[in-house]
Amino acid sequence: MWQNELTNGLGIQYPIIQAPMAGGPTTSKLVAAVSNAGGLGMIGAGYLTPSQLREQIQEVKQLTDKSFGINLFVPSNYQQEEQKIKKAKELLSPIEKELNVALTPKIPTFEKDLDTFHEQVRVVMEEQVPVCSFTFGLPSQEIIGHLKNNSIIVAGTATTVHEAILNEQAGMDFVVLQGSEAGGHRGTFENNAEQGLIGLISLIPQAADQINIPIIAAGGIMDARGALAAKCLGAHAVQLGTAFLVCEESGASPLHKEAIIKASEDQIVLTKAFSGKMARGVNNRFIETMKKNEHELPPYPIQNELTKGIRKASSLYGNPEFISLWAGQSPRLAKSLTVQELINQFIQDTETLKNRLSF
Amino acid sequence: MWQNELTNGLGIQYPIIQAPMAGGPTTSKLVAAVSNAGGLGMIGAGYLTPSQLREQIQEVKQLTDKSFGINLFVPSNYQQEEQKIKKAKELLSPIEKELNVALTPKIPTFEKDLDTFHEQVRVVMEEQVPVCSFTFGLPSQEIIGHLKNNSIIVAGTATTVHEAILNEQAGMDFVVLQGSEAGGHRGTFENNAEQGLIGLISLIPQAADQINIPIIAAGGIMDARGALAAKCLGAHAVQLGTAFLVCEESGASPLHKEAIIKASEDQIVLTKAFSGKMARGVNNRFIETMKKNEHELPPYPIQNELTKGIRKASSLYGNPEFISLWAGQSPRLAKSLTVQELINQFIQDTETLKNRLSF
Repeated sequence: MWQNELTNGLGIQYPIIQAPMAGGPTTSKLVAAVSNAGGLGMIGAGYLTPSQLREQIQEVKQLTDKSFGINLFVPSNYQQEEQKIKKAKELLSPIEKELNVALTPKIPTFEKDLDTFHEQVRVVMEEQVPVCSFTFGLPSQEIIGHLKNNSIIVAGTATTVHEAILNEQAGMDFVVLQGSEAGGHRGTFENNAEQGLIGLISLIPQAADQINIPIIAAGGIMDARGALAAKCLGAHAVQLGTAFLVCEESGASPLHKEAIIKASEDQIVLTKAFSGKMARGVNNRFIETMKKNEHELPPYPIQNELTKGIRKASSLYGNPEFISLWAGQSPRLAKSLTVQELINQFIQDTETLKNRLSF
Repeated sequence: MWQNELTNGLGIQYPIIQAPMAGGPTTSKLVAAVSNAGGLGMIGAGYLTPSQLREQIQEVKQLTDKSFGINLFVPSNYQQEEQKIKKAKELLSPIEKELNVALTPKIPTFEKDLDTFHEQVRVVMEEQVPVCSFTFGLPSQEIIGHLKNNSIIVAGTATTVHEAILNEQAGMDFVVLQGSEAGGHRGTFENNAEQGLIGLISLIPQAADQINIPIIAAGGIMDARGALAAKCLGAHAVQLGTAFLVCEESGASPLHKEAIIKASEDQIVLTKAFSGKMARGVNNRFIETMKKNEHELPPYPIQNELTKGIRKASSLYGNPEFISLWAGQSPRLAKSLTVQELINQFIQDTETLKNRLSF
C-alpha cells in the first residue's frame, strides 16, 4: 500500500478507513479489528445516546491500543409538518398491520437533537477519541476549535466540490469525499440531494484541484482496484463501508449481509422512504411501496423515527423486505471474510495489481 | 500511455477514444484530428441521414488515413401516445411563443427509424468504416455478423453488468461502459434508466469480473488521472466526450462550449425534457421549467422532434437557456485546447503521474 501525510497523521499503517456505519454494523469488535489490522476503525455514533457512546468508546479501548475514530451526525433544523406526519402514518399503516406492529413513535425535535449532539461531542472530548468525523453538515467553529485544541483530529464529509471547500474553510484536518456510489445516507448538506450525486471519478480530481487538505475517497470501493484508482484520482486514503459491513465482525444483521452478497449492482437504489433523507441500499418491498409518495414524507429524522417499529419487526421476523439494507453500488465485490482476511487480501492484491499494471 | 489488445486491435497509438457525440460536435475535422493525433476519432451518426453519413465518412477519409469509427443509435419500438404528444405540445407552447417559433414537427415512427438505421448500416459496410459502435440497444445478430464478416470491428454500450454481458454474448468485439458520470444520453437499454446510473468506480471492476471482451471506460474522464484510474479498475481504454467537445475542432456551438467551461459539477443534471430519453447536461431554464412534468412527456425520439424548433431558435438567438448543453460530471476539468494540445497534455500528464505515484 502507500503511506502519506494522512496515514502518518492518523497513525495508521494502511490508507484504509472503515466507514462509520451507524445503526448496528460498527460493533466494538469490528472497529477494533480494523484498527488492529492496520486500518482506522470508526464508530458510527449517529444514533447512539451519549452514555451508549461512552460505553462503546471504552469497550473499543479495551480491544485495541491503536488509533480509532467516531462519526457524529450534525443536526440541521427541520419543520414539524403535521400534514406530512399524518400522511406518512397513513402510508405506513397497512405495513404496520401486515407486520403486526402498533407503535406510537416519539416525534423528535431539533432542539433535543442538538442537545444530544453537544453531549456526544463532550463525550468524545472527555474520552480523548483520536479522530472525530462529521456528516450531514458542519459543526460550529466553537466545536471544531475545541476538538482541535484537545488534539483530536477532525474531519468532515462532502459530496460536491463546494462542500469540500466549505470543509477546508471550517478548519477540518481532512475531508471524506462521498461519491454517488456510496451506500447509506447521503452526506449532502449545502447542495441539494440531487446535486450531490457525483461519481468519484469526477468528484475526486475536481475537488483535489480546489482544496489542500487530504482527501478520503468513499463510495463503491471494495478492493485493490478501487483503492489504486482513488489514488490515481488524487485521494490519500479510501473509506470502505459495504466491504466491512459484510465482514464477520460487523453487527449488521445476517439478513442485511445476505441481501448484499446476493445483490447485483442494478438492484442498489436511492430512497428517502426509510428516513426522510436520501440513502442508498438494496431494493425491497418497502422502497417499492413508498416510491411514488417519497416527496410527501416528513424530513429526517422524523420519518426515520416513524419507520423504526416496522424495521425492527421486519428484522425480528427474518423478513428483509421492510429493513433498510444499506449498500454501495458494488455488491458483486462483497465477500464474507474476517476483517483480517479482508485487509490481508486488500494489501496483497494491491501489490499484485501494482506490478501487473507496470505503469 | 499503454498498449494492449484493444489498441492493437483498433490500430491506434493511445488508448484514447473520442466519444461519438451526435448532433454537431463530431465534425470531420474533430474526428480526423483525434485519429491523426494517435487516438480513435468517432463520428456520432445517430441523427445523420444515410447520405449525410456517407458524405462525412468520405470527408474524414480525405483528412486522415488512420483508423476511425462511427456510432449508430439502435432504434427501439415506441408508442405514438397522442395524449402525451398533446400534453408536451401544451407545455412547449409558452416557450415557443417566447422564442417566436411556430413549427409543426414531423412525428417520427419506429418503422421509419428502422429503415434509416438499416441504410446507415449499409453505408458503413459499403464505405468499410474500420469501427462501428452502437448505443441505445443491440443490433440484430444478422447485422453484427454482416459487419464482422466485412472486417469491421463492432462495439456496444452498456450501463450495467447485465448489459455488458449481453454485449459480449451478442458477439461485440469490445464494450463501452458508460458510467453515471457521462454526459449526453444514457445508453441504458435492458435495465431501466435509474438502474443504469452506476459510477465507473463501481461499474468497471464488477463488469471486468464477468466479461472477457476489452472494456472502454466512458464518463467523467478528462485527464490523466481519470485514465490511470480507469486502467486500475480494469479498463483497456478511455472514451472522452466533454474533453473533446470543448476542443477547437469540435462543432459544438460556442454557447455550449462556454456553458461547460463556466459550469461546476453541481450544475450538471439529468433530464428527459429535451428528448424523452434521460441525458446529462448543464442545467438551464428549459430543464427547470419542464422538470415537474418530465414523467408525462412522450418517449424518445418523439420528444426530441418536438423540441427541435425550440433548440434551434435558442441557438440562433445566442441564448443558452433552451439548448441541450450535454456535459459529463467533470466540467471543472474542461479546457479550450486543440485536439493535438489536449492529447499531448494527456500523454505528458500520464507519464508524470505514473512517476509521481511511484506505485
